[in-house]
Amino acid sequence: MPEFENRPCVLTLGPDELPAIRRPTLLVDRARAERNLDRMLARARAAGARLRPHVKTHRSRAIGRWLAARGIDAIATSSLEMAAYFAADGWRDILVAIPFNPREREAAGRLARGVLRKLGLAVDSAEAVDALAGLAAPVDVWIEIDTGYGRTGVPAGDGGQVLALVGRIAAAGPPLRFAGLLAHEGRTYRAGSREEIERLHAGAMARLADLRERLAAAGHRAAISIGDTPACSLVSDLSGADELRPGNFLFYDLMQARLGACGDEEIACALACPIIGRYPERGQIVVHGGAVHLSRESLRGAGGEPCFGLLARWDGAAWRGAEPAAPVVAISQEHGTIRLPAADLAAARIGGLALVLPVHSCLTADLHGRYLDLDGGELDAMGR
Amino acid sequence: MPEFENRPCVLTLGPDELPAIRRPTLLVDRARAERNLDRMLARARAAGARLRPHVKTHRSRAIGRWLAARGIDAIATSSLEMAAYFAADGWRDILVAIPFNPREREAAGRLARGVLRKLGLAVDSAEAVDALAGLAAPVDVWIEIDTGYGRTGVPAGDGGQVLALVGRIAAAGPPLRFAGLLAHEGRTYRAGSREEIERLHAGAMARLADLRERLAAAGHRAAISIGDTPACSLVSDLSGADELRPGNFLFYDLMQARLGACGDEEIACALACPIIGRYPERGQIVVHGGAVHLSRESLRGAGGEPCFGLLARWDGAAWRGAEPAAPVVAISQEHGTIRLPAADLAAARIGGLALVLPVHSCLTADLHGRYLDLDGGELDAMGR
Repeated sequence: MPEFENRPCVLTLGPDELPAIRRPTLLVDRARAERNLDRMLARARAAGARLRPHVKTHRSRAIGRWLAARGIDAIATSSLEMAAYFAADGWRDILVAIPFNPREREAAGRLARGVLRKLGLAVDSAEAVDALAGLAAPVDVWIEIDTGYGRTGVPAGDGGQVLALVGRIAAAGPPLRFAGLLAHEGRTYRAGSREEIERLHAGAMARLADLRERLAAAGHRAAISIGDTPACSLVSDLSGADELRPGNFLFYDLMQARLGACGDEEIACALACPIIGRYPERGQIVVHGGAVHLSRESLRGAGGEPCFGLLARWDGAAWRGAEPAAPVVAISQEHGTIRLPAADLAAARIGGLALVLPVHSCLTADLHGRYLDLDGGELDAMGR
Repeated sequence: MPEFENRPCVLTLGPDELPAIRRPTLLVDRARAERNLDRMLARARAAGARLRPHVKTHRSRAIGRWLAARGIDAIATSSLEMAAYFAADGWRDILVAIPFNPREREAAGRLARGVLRKLGLAVDSAEAVDALAGLAAPVDVWIEIDTGYGRTGVPAGDGGQVLALVGRIAAAGPPLRFAGLLAHEGRTYRAGSREEIERLHAGAMARLADLRERLAAAGHRAAISIGDTPACSLVSDLSGADELRPGNFLFYDLMQARLGACGDEEIACALACPIIGRYPERGQIVVHGGAVHLSRESLRGAGGEPCFGLLARWDGAAWRGAEPAAPVVAISQEHGTIRLPAADLAAARIGGLALVLPVHSCLTADLHGRYLDLDGGELDAMGR
């Protein structure tokens, strides 16, 4: 294997490397993902908070076991179906971090009654609390708070509504138990600077602390659960939360690297795409790897042009950081069009592979029913 | 069931309607899809062309049988894996309409040798032809031509390269057989008017006809296969092509409606999404139905704001056209945020359903492993 430094700016592999890969395949660098996990665990411990990883990023039993091996015993999911998938693999404390959907009342009851020691559900309305009343097994009810993102949750300024909901949960009586306040400050994903992420996080925590005090004055204890990966990864003061439930941090991606939540050498998944076209006259290659393998999530380049991913260099055993000169400039259902510097274009061959770092790893991973680690081992993920 | 006309502008359903739907589910209006199919079949017949539907839009054996019931005996797929899935259901003439990936040489050989009467593969380079040489079973080789879209294909102006490739295929000898020229004029999907679609189509056909003449002068017969849904749906003169391979026309979507390729009452799939949040103060609801159910494909609204889908009205038995006043204005992994007029907001209930017409039905359908028809029947689709 030639030295990495002696290669041209090689982003594309010959068919002799990773020969087992036949079609677009998501590779996971386990060592890197585990380092990301250990770093986040250390941050949570330093802040005195429990880490409850959100497993929607990987949806993988196999990867869930990397968490369990570190003593993590609680996770968050984005659907009841995902909770059932992980419960079947032995998880006993699962928070479904999306407002409860009354159409899943029976399924929630089955899960709470069956395998789970602790099922957490989120609500932000009286209707949802009413739909949960009378379930045949205990459920932890979290009230979702909107700290400014404007997606779901009771507006943080509306303490009256929060108190009313806690009262309604108490009135419904067992099996419902009020657990605490759950928030997702999603504005950090669009922040322009580290300072803005710090400011958004501090503002969200102040609002949640106010609500907690107000509830305490009325005799209600409330835990606080927060979850955005940018703040969990980089704010200097993570105190005040009882649990952190980031998901994206395990793989990270170009969006997080741009925010400064990770370095691009920490991105732990990449889509291996067979090269199917070579177009030197326009400085491009085309790979089998499109919107159905990578998702249509994009970042804007300096000139406002969309970027659907960046190629990574391969050193013979793993990929390195992102190559800004090799962006995925266009994407259709099955095709990705990649601009390449001349030296890389000369090295690219039909049947070779290109490794694409995703813009948003959660959406990319969701498109795959299995991943490969760098030893060729298969990591299963939840199907559809 | 109240009369449709007497309802408020109701886009949201009570939990008493379509009760079997628990989570985001893609509904298919079979009657509408079959009308779309019959219309396209009639257009192909009038043009003297064979219809070879591209099945990547639905990836469904069950829907494939609607084609077979009409005597259609040839399809196009976007991967070899998809070809194998349909071959297993009895299809015998399949064209894989993406440049051949040499990493799939063995799989292609197995498929050609095994179940298929006719396997078509596309190439645009000498390397790809060389990778096919010596396969153990006959293969129809199509040369992909780039008529201006700039994705894959030999540039239409480079007749020399096309002739060289035909010569290389001939020199490789059986099992390779040169079949013809394959093109996808993808610029029609971004056209600003019907006239522009007509012009793009006429230009592409003229370039393909020139190439065919040049090949004929050298003693090579070439069929012409084209496939973009906008042109296949609306150009006045479809003559000159031997086969048409549109895919999207079966379901259509908001993008095609905007192009004029369909009316919005012809859109034959919709995502049924449980309502999980209601926010009258900002005129919005939130549904369980996000990027992993709908895709992130968007259209631009009049003010440049993105639109990820539009709600459809439900008349008690089927949905009607799109409601421009009820757009999906934001989308995250699992959530969709929908703006609603006041009357609809008043009618919306947590646990109700909203029906979202997709921007790009191919990407939406690809996210689902099964669909439901309006009688509750399940239509299976290819997994991952």
